[in-house]
Amino acid sequence: MTAPPDALLDRLATVVGARNLLTAADDVAPYLVEWRGLYRGAARAVVRPGSTAEVAAVVALAREAGVALVPQGGNTGLVGGQIPFEHGREIVLSLKRLDRIREVDPASDLIVAEAGVTLAAVQAAAEAADRLFPLSLAAEGSATIGGNLASNAGGTAVLAYGNARDLCLGLEVVLADGRVWNGLGRLRKDNTGFDLKNLFVGSEGTLGVITAAVLKLFPRPRSRETAFVAVPSPAAALELLALARAHAGGAVTTVELMARTALDFVLRHAPGARDPLAEPSPWYVLLELSSPLDGQLAATMEGLLGAAFEAGVVTDGAIAATGAQRADFWRLREAMSEVQGHEGGSIKHDVAVPLKALPAFVEEATAAVLALVPGCRPAVFGHVGDGNLHFNVSQPVGADKAAYLAGWEAMNAAVHAIVAAHGGSISAEHGIGRLKRDLLPAVKDPVAMALMADLKTLLDPTGILNPGKVLAAPAEGTRR
Amino acid sequence: MTAPPDALLDRLATVVGARNLLTAADDVAPYLVEWRGLYRGAARAVVRPGSTAEVAAVVALAREAGVALVPQGGNTGLVGGQIPFEHGREIVLSLKRLDRIREVDPASDLIVAEAGVTLAAVQAAAEAADRLFPLSLAAEGSATIGGNLASNAGGTAVLAYGNARDLCLGLEVVLADGRVWNGLGRLRKDNTGFDLKNLFVGSEGTLGVITAAVLKLFPRPRSRETAFVAVPSPAAALELLALARAHAGGAVTTVELMARTALDFVLRHAPGARDPLAEPSPWYVLLELSSPLDGQLAATMEGLLGAAFEAGVVTDGAIAATGAQRADFWRLREAMSEVQGHEGGSIKHDVAVPLKALPAFVEEATAAVLALVPGCRPAVFGHVGDGNLHFNVSQPVGADKAAYLAGWEAMNAAVHAIVAAHGGSISAEHGIGRLKRDLLPAVKDPVAMALMADLKTLLDPTGILNPGKVLAAPAEGTRR
Repeated sequence: MTAPPDALLDRLATVVGARNLLTAADDVAPYLVEWRGLYRGAARAVVRPGSTAEVAAVVALAREAGVALVPQGGNTGLVGGQIPFEHGREIVLSLKRLDRIREVDPASDLIVAEAGVTLAAVQAAAEAADRLFPLSLAAEGSATIGGNLASNAGGTAVLAYGNARDLCLGLEVVLADGRVWNGLGRLRKDNTGFDLKNLFVGSEGTLGVITAAVLKLFPRPRSRETAFVAVPSPAAALELLALARAHAGGAVTTVELMARTALDFVLRHAPGARDPLAEPSPWYVLLELSSPLDGQLAATMEGLLGAAFEAGVVTDGAIAATGAQRADFWRLREAMSEVQGHEGGSIKHDVAVPLKALPAFVEEATAAVLALVPGCRPAVFGHVGDGNLHFNVSQPVGADKAAYLAGWEAMNAAVHAIVAAHGGSISAEHGIGRLKRDLLPAVKDPVAMALMADLKTLLDPTGILNPGKVLAAPAEGTRR
Repeated sequence: MTAPPDALLDRLATVVGARNLLTAADDVAPYLVEWRGLYRGAARAVVRPGSTAEVAAVVALAREAGVALVPQGGNTGLVGGQIPFEHGREIVLSLKRLDRIREVDPASDLIVAEAGVTLAAVQAAAEAADRLFPLSLAAEGSATIGGNLASNAGGTAVLAYGNARDLCLGLEVVLADGRVWNGLGRLRKDNTGFDLKNLFVGSEGTLGVITAAVLKLFPRPRSRETAFVAVPSPAAALELLALARAHAGGAVTTVELMARTALDFVLRHAPGARDPLAEPSPWYVLLELSSPLDGQLAATMEGLLGAAFEAGVVTDGAIAATGAQRADFWRLREAMSEVQGHEGGSIKHDVAVPLKALPAFVEEATAAVLALVPGCRPAVFGHVGDGNLHFNVSQPVGADKAAYLAGWEAMNAAVHAIVAAHGGSISAEHGIGRLKRDLLPAVKDPVAMALMADLKTLLDPTGILNPGKVLAAPAEGTRR
């Protein structure tokens, strides 16, 4: 028995208040578009609950009506997971009004935040309590913590602090039938039964709706040393990583690899960007050491870079002497994603391979894409310490963008075959969403695929939570 | 349709070889007894497969016959999870013959080990490759890595490196229907679908049988500083933890709290143990700093302890000057569990509370147990940085052991009520098994309990994997 659409909208409006149920095209529009223009969906409405109880009521009503919900945070996801399909029968469930920081407890090193709090706001609340919340990524001003957890976000601090998953102590989740799981544990250790938390983290809103989380805090770094160095190759970057760990241990918080092409794009398109080094190099590393101790890292960084020069692992480099210089170095790295749009079409790969396979992967994947599209320009950058590269390939200069992008799947197939040969991942940190859903069955263990489908059926038997994301919906196209 | 028992044993013998199917009472006996004598089970047989394929065949045969399996590693578990029930209808599935280290890859900082490899053997293989596998606990010579993962073991290095869960990159698991999930990923980041790994880690053999794992390796510490210090209270120990982190950041690898009573027991019963300090103190901390750098920690430890003395947080202390002294300090801590048997009955609690609640918990729980059993002796020790204490209470001197232990449940109830009031856990690191199964429904969110039961039904619909552990079996007592 499904309620007629209007009745559902009326009932939703009663739960959240009329002004939090958006139906006018102009109001709904911003929720329908992926920020890079990759997806443009349609929706019956956008519902904006203001509390966990309201989320639970919305989910229960949607389930009763048999209408699917697409949970959305800051709409910064990179695989289309937060965008409704084009058929227009879904409702966007925006979590942005769940924007309270419920508690900051520096004595226990934790913070309790609702799903709609932006990552930047969590970082700021931690800093105000003289603590660090280390998750850090380019979209942090808009991205919400709920979205970060639903997609198990990575970013530039994973090497030292782990993914979003590793930073989460507990969750509050609304299940597909409207029940609320209160899993807001504040404990570092709790072996009382199965791990439910990690089932929801990274499930992209398909198994439940995260409404709040307990997050770990860390001592705030009091000293930082940041270097922008030239390295001859990805293999040299790995050697630098090993040297850095040998010299600085747990103080190594960032080791980001960047290809010259990626830097060139930034220098060309990012206002005020300039090359910190005199001579161009095929590859660069942004290296940062951090410590909660005052000023003990300068000598370590100098010793480390001295050893790296001597070993031929680093050929040139600059150490940031001021906070402004540090910000400049970081801006070069952080602009790499957004400037790609200025260079025409870009075919993206967010891959991970075991560390030792990384140089071979870069070499083989570069050869493969050049064989496929002569003149194409791999603008590679990523988190070398995690074995995670954004192998993004810009179109040849002057090529037709649409024609180039029509080769997306063919290029994906070529690159992902190399990833698979090295036992790698076709989505290291962005998730599956819609973009990679149909690639998954070919790369994933079939038993894992079957278990995932079983879990989806168990937790969302009527398929109302983000159906068709991560996994194909059983009756896709026929859902009303 | 179930096969007659003898037919099942014959078929199992065909799979594993006759000498790996134990049925003689003497052969089976060691697998039936919990090492502290808490449980003594019975079993139809012990089956010892030698490969993942053999495990899969054993599970498939057991399922077909409707006979339950009790997975067992080194039989060092502390909650009876590895011991069959007394009815004698189960078969113990020993994983100890899966004892190969399949690969050590120091370049990617990982090791692939089968379930039956002892924790000590994994540590040794890591060390031979100039790496550290940080999981460390008293039973490491016998405990197997499969058991460590199935119980999400903690230990003395969690503060710096995390639980067993955090040290695992991938798993190979035999499911209840005999399928093998190959999840032996070697990646630091892989967001391709739901997190299946963490569902099996910590599920105590009730959802699947772990047969192999990919584990993380770390740089090996080259310098260590170890101090045994007197502190006036648990609150002071927390202040010492904060000071240690401020002075030494990620180099703080151990902060273990110990009550004088626990030390007294060691001094009385552990051969060669002696008090490192001249005057007794109500509480002590074993503090260790480690670093992959050579010899930079001595000054840090001295500065930290100097500041702690000045703040009144530490009242006396000794820094280990030699490796032998360090070993002596560690022996005091590690003997605390085993010596309790010499002091008569001991009622145990493995609890965690949020850090800031730890002093209040100790005070309230101590008052509660003394009110219940005047003269009882809390011999408290644990991992203060994780908020995890072993609140073990020895009987009054001269009391009747059996009479004291008859009050186990009443004392548990009193202590766990205080744990609950502080939002804590009744099993921080030992798991639920059999010992705490019936306590769980009272302390766990009912939605979590329902989800756990649903997951058990999904993954083991006929209930052949360690039934009655963690969760009550639906038809307990009637299973054949």
